[in-house]
Parts: sequence; structure tokens; C-alpha cells
Amino acid sequence: MRWPPGRPAAILGPVSRGRLEAFSDGVIAILVTIMVLNLRPPSGDQFTDLRAMVPQLLVYVLSFVMLAIYWNNHHHLMQVVERIDGRVLWANMGLLFSLSLMPIATEWLGPHWRASGPVLAYGLVLLAAAIAYYILTTQLLRIHAPDSRLAVAIGQDRKGKLSAAGYVLAVLLALVVPVISIAIYIAIAVVWLIPDRRIERVAGDPPAPG
Amino acid sequence: MRWPPGRPAAILGPVSRGRLEAFSDGVIAILVTIMVLNLRPPSGDQFTDLRAMVPQLLVYVLSFVMLAIYWNNHHHLMQVVERIDGRVLWANMGLLFSLSLMPIATEWLGPHWRASGPVLAYGLVLLAAAIAYYILTTQLLRIHAPDSRLAVAIGQDRKGKLSAAGYVLAVLLALVVPVISIAIYIAIAVVWLIPDRRIERVAGDPPAPG
Amino acid sequence: MRWPPGRPAAILGPVSRGRLEAFSDGVIAILVTIMVLNLRPPSGDQFTDLRAMVPQLLVYVLSFVMLAIYWNNHHHLMQVVERIDGRVLWANMGLLFSLSLMPIATEWLGPHWRASGPVLAYGLVLLAAAIAYYILTTQLLRIHAPDSRLAVAIGQDRKGKLSAAGYVLAVLLALVVPVISIAIYIAIAVVWLIPDRRIERVAGDPPAPG
Amino acid sequence: MRWPPGRPAAILGPVSRGRLEAFSDGVIAILVTIMVLNLRPPSGDQFTDLRAMVPQLLVYVLSFVMLAIYWNNHHHLMQVVERIDGRVLWANMGLLFSLSLMPIATEWLGPHWRASGPVLAYGLVLLAAAIAYYILTTQLLRIHAPDSRLAVAIGQDRKGKLSAAGYVLAVLLALVVPVISIAIYIAIAVVWLIPDRRIERVAGDPPAPG
Repeated sequence: MRWPPGRPAAILGPVSRGRLEAFSDGVIAILVTIMVLNLRPPSGDQFTDLRAMVPQLLVYVLSFVMLAIYWNNHHHLMQVVERIDGRVLWANMGLLFSLSLMPIATEWLGPHWRASGPVLAYGLVLLAAAIAYYILTTQLLRIHAPDSRLAVAIGQDRKGKLSAAGYVLAVLLALVVPVISIAIYIAIAVVWLIPDRRIERVAGDPPAPG
Repeated sequence: MRWPPGRPAAILGPVSRGRLEAFSDGVIAILVTIMVLNLRPPSGDQFTDLRAMVPQLLVYVLSFVMLAIYWNNHHHLMQVVERIDGRVLWANMGLLFSLSLMPIATEWLGPHWRASGPVLAYGLVLLAAAIAYYILTTQLLRIHAPDSRLAVAIGQDRKGKLSAAGYVLAVLLALVVPVISIAIYIAIAVVWLIPDRRIERVAGDPPAPG
Repeated sequence: MRWPPGRPAAILGPVSRGRLEAFSDGVIAILVTIMVLNLRPPSGDQFTDLRAMVPQLLVYVLSFVMLAIYWNNHHHLMQVVERIDGRVLWANMGLLFSLSLMPIATEWLGPHWRASGPVLAYGLVLLAAAIAYYILTTQLLRIHAPDSRLAVAIGQDRKGKLSAAGYVLAVLLALVVPVISIAIYIAIAVVWLIPDRRIERVAGDPPAPG
Repeated sequence: MRWPPGRPAAILGPVSRGRLEAFSDGVIAILVTIMVLNLRPPSGDQFTDLRAMVPQLLVYVLSFVMLAIYWNNHHHLMQVVERIDGRVLWANMGLLFSLSLMPIATEWLGPHWRASGPVLAYGLVLLAAAIAYYILTTQLLRIHAPDSRLAVAIGQDRKGKLSAAGYVLAVLLALVVPVISIAIYIAIAVVWLIPDRRIERVAGDPPAPG
């Protein structure tokens, strides 16, 4: 995936950006939804039979929230994007690939949330998605001016870097105390539930008068 | 999910609203469709083997109609929305999450439609969706003027409140006579099949002459 | 689903039509694709193991073509639609519901294509879709002028009526010689592969000079 | 699928092209994602249990990349399309059908990547998709001027022809040394990861000044 140096970034305009958004939305919408297919209803018909499903259901909630956060951040990010090129497309594919591993990681974690292996694997998928998102922002910054709304909106991306560090920590801890790793995943999700105010502030601003 | 007070509602405009609609449509379209995956064809090859599928098929019809009603109401609601913000996005995610439990509730109810547990669980999912939809309208009203088309269109939302009351009643009755609960679900669906005339009236109105 | 008489048809405009198209496309795209999930790869690893899959694969091709035809016709139909209302939305939902039974009908027919039951069921699903499509055109004609491009484009809809008659015949024959029913399904698909020239002619026409 | 000769190509305009793109995106997004449903998590809860999944996971990566390449090329191709007609719609359906066989080919190849049969079948699916894409470009060229941006962008399509030749070679070799066939599939994917610069160059160009 080397890139010829000196190649000008193609200005594909809003139509193209729209299709990238639509494709990303499609994939995330499907991922969010097919996780439900992995939840099986109880074989019995007693309401209390649902009790055995509680851990799986909670892990499903966590994964749903994580994917919703990515959709939300992707949505806000794309609103300030002025141009995309081939590398951005592939960086976006990398993000979608990482996120596509969420359902299987979720399915494994559901019934085994106290075991090191599935907790570790779940964290690795989250870490991969965080790294892929970071690469996506890097590729976007490469073709945007340093004073573009995108660059201002992303800024230092401290929250992104702290999350990645959190996932690394959680992955390591999974080998020892998997329950703490899960607590870290939840904590990071809660932090991200507060939407990226930097970008929303910029996106909400009316264009500065000349 | 506390929100900093005094923070101005971001005016994201029609593009952003369009993407919220597209994502919601995607999720609802997938939910509607994957319920079919949970229907298994008969193992035999006699037409009469379909008889055993009838209850499942009828429950599938009910769930399809319920999801179609939500899509329809969401469609009409969004047509009079002027702006969205982060809280609206998350309220919408809450609605989609509630709806995402429909396939598993449907799958459980299909073969066990006379048992309290699955009827109760199905009603809880419907109740959760009704509450989530109510929260969504509340969040939208918060950032629209009291005389906006949205506010006029929603009005007192008596139908929404009565439905929620109906689900509560059905959930309670499920413990005693589950068949009556199912009758209530069907009755509520029939009521909603008549589309939300308040909103359609407003949406259909030409802009008032100045 | 009674309708208050004298209620004016809401003119929802292109945005609303666009969302109806997007939702329909989403459902059809998912239906087309999840049929693949019902195809299981051979358990062996010999190329000749695929031989056992041939009937299922051919039925999958037939169903794929049928759904593609519906998408194609829906696409052409929507291009000449000027307005939609609540009844059109529900007629469209009826079409999507009928089509949503294609995957399970396909899955049943695959391994049992010589048996009356599955051939009959498959034909009933196709018949239901044809009737639903007819209802959709009726509801559209109701709110379009008799000289609208839509009315001209639909005309007598002889092809649609003949197809419905063909499905009725095939359903009856399925009880006696199911193979002939399948031949009828294929013949109808071939006829429809030639796109609806009436509509395409109108859609392709530049607006008549004043 | 014969076509009446002399029939003028319908100029359907950007709206129609947009819907074709949206439908194609939907199908590809679903295909990319449902392949994950065929990955089952390990039954054990040890991280080392993932080791048995490695071949399946790598085949999944390859298929994901292949589908992403098709999405990417389709995206670039559509950007320079000026008109579509019924034959283009059906050529596009042919491409989507070929791609729809990727998940089952992937599922078969995963655990049997050293056996001739699945490697051969996987290659045939890739070959079918390559041929379908070629037919799509041919149908598009038919209704575009020889000096259109599309015609310039496609040019001789040497990369497409070489890929098809590569798949033929790989399919033949699969009977003897399946591992080499897989190496060829990977090599072709790598070549295509470099996006189609011919088209991107044209798409990025501002309209030539008159």
C-alpha cells in the first residue's frame, strides 16, 4: 500500500464523501444489528429463563454503545472533511474491518466474561478500531490545511490517545484480573458518550464572516 | 450522559439530519429483514408441514408491522425536524437499541405465544421502544420553538401515551392471561396503522405565505 | 386501514420519495444477500461435493433474479412518481413484506424442488408479491392525474396481470406436476428481464416543450 | 436478455445513478459484513483457542479486501458515469450476484485452504466477478462517447484483463498446487489495493476550461 510521493490529493467533493459516509453507515448499521442474531432466546418459556442471558445482553449493550460511538464520531468527523482520496478510503476500510470483528468478539465474550482469553480478544478488537480511527484522522489531516476546520476540530485528540492507552492497559490486565479490564472498557465508553465537543463546536459554527 | 448546561444546540442542518435518517433506516431495514432468518422452513416437504409455522408467521407479521410503524412515524417526525444535536443522536440510538431487541423477542414468542414469559418479554421490548420514542420527541422539542412545525405536529402525543399505558397493562396481564396481552399488542398496532395525521397534516402544508 | 374520505393527498415531495426508495432498496438489498446465508458450503472438501448444491444454487439464482426484477421495476416506477402519501407507504410495506418471504421460500424449495408443497409455497410468495406490487401501483394512480407520466407509464399493466395469472396457474399445477410450475416461474422471470419499456420510455423522455 | 437494436439509451441522470450506487453499496456492505457471521468463536475460553481460527480469519481478511476493492473501483467508476440504461442495471446485478457468492466461497475455503476443491471454487467466484465487472464497463462504454471521461478513464483496462488471466491460471493450478493459487489471489489483491489511478486522475481533474 505504498503511495507514489508527490501525487496530488484528489479533490473528490461532497458526492464522493457522501458515498463514503453511506457505505460506512451501512456497514456499521449491519454490524450493530447482526450482533442480535448471535443472541439466542432461551429454550424454555419461563421469564426467569432470561436470567441466563443477562451477561450476554449486557455485553451486547456495551458493544452496541461502542459501535454507536464510532458511528457518532465518524459522523461528526465527516462533517468537517473537505476532501478525501484513495488513502482515506483505505484507512476507512481499515476502520470498518476492525469494527467488523466486534460481533464475533461480543459473541465470545458473552458467556465467558470472566475468562482472560475472550476479555483479551475483545480488548484487542477495540484497540485495533482505536488505532484504525487514529490512522483515518492522520490520513485526513494529511490532505487538509493546518488551519482547516478538520485540523482545528481534531486538535491534539487527547481523548483518542487516552482511550488507546486504556485499551492497552486493559489487554494486559486481562491476563490477570479480566473483570477490571471490562470495567475499563465500560469507563472508556462512558467517556466517549459525551460527544466530541471540539468537532461539534466547529461544525455548529456558522462560517466566519470574511 | 449529563450535559453541560447552557451549551447551545448545534444547528447541524439537513445533511446531518439526512445521515441520521439513513442510519436509522438502515438499522430498521435490517431488523425487519433478519427476523426472517429466524424462521426455519419445515423439515418435511408437505404443504401441510407449514401448519406448524403458522403461529411463528403471525408473530412475524405483528413484529414486521410494529417495525414498519416505527419507520413510518420516524419518517414523518424527521420531516418536520429543523435541527438535531448530540442528545438527539443518542436518543435516536436508544430507540434503535430498543427496536434491535424485536427479532429476539419475536423468535422467543413465536413458538411460545401462550406462555407468560415470552409474552411479557415481548411487551417489555415494545414498552422500551415506546419510551425511547417518547424520549426522542422530548429531546427534539427541547431544541425547537414552541410554535415550530415539530411542536405543533407532536402536540400532546396522546396516542403515544395511550400506547405506553397499553403496553404496561399488557405486561401486567401477561402474568395472568397472556392471550389478552397479545390482543392488546395487535390492537395498538392497528391504531398506529392509521398514520400520524397531526404530523402529516403539518408536513403536507405548504409554507404559510409571509 | 380505512381512510377518511375527502382527505387530500399529502404532497411529500422528492425528499420523502427518496427516503421511501432508500428504505425499499435497503430491504431488497438485504433480502438478496441473506439468501446466501442459507446456502451452506459442502462438508467435504472435494470440488465434486458442490454437485449436491446445484439445485439450491439454481433456486438461489432464480430468487436473486426475481428480487432484482422487483428492484428494477420499483426503481423505474419511482422515477415517475410525483407524490406519495400514507397509503402508498403502507402499500410499499406490503410489497416489502411479501418479498421478505422469498428467502424462506427459497430455502425450502432448494432441496425439495420436485415436491408439491415447497413449489406451491414458492408460487404463493411470488403471487403475493405480484398482488402487492399491483396494489402499490393502484395507490399511486389514485393520487396522480390520468395524464401523468406515471399513469401513461403504467398503462394497462398487461405484463403484471399476465404474471399474476401465470402464478395462479403455476400454484394450481404444483399440486400435479411441480416441475411445470418451476418452468412457469422461470418463464415469467425471463419475460420481466426485459425491463418495463413503457416506463423507461417515459422516464427517458425529456420534458415535452411547452 | 436480448435487446431491441436501435433502442436509444435512456438518459436517466444523476438521481438514477445515485440509486444504483446506493443499492450496490448496500449489497456490498452486507456481503462484507455477513461473512463475519460465518466465523464462529472458539467453544473454549482460552486465548490460544483462537489459534484454530487463524486460517479462517486470514481468508476472511482476503475476502474483505477483495470486496473492498470492488467497492472502491465501483465508486471510482461511477464517478465518471454520465448515463445508465437497463443493460447497465442488469450488468451491475450480474456483478452483485457474483460478489454474493463470496461469503459461501470464503466459508468453504476457511477450514479447507489446502484442498483443491475450495481453492478452485473460490477462484471461480473471483473470476466470475472479474468477468461481470468487465461486462459492466463494456455496457457503460457502449452508451458513452469515445472521448468521454469514462472512456478515457477505463482505457485499455490492462489491470482488469491481467487479473482475469491470473484467476484462470490460479483455477487451473488449484488442481495441482492449491497453495500457489492462493498466493496468486493475494498478489492480485495487492495489485488492486493501489487504486485505479487512471480513473482517479480523471475524476480529480477540474472540468477543462472551454
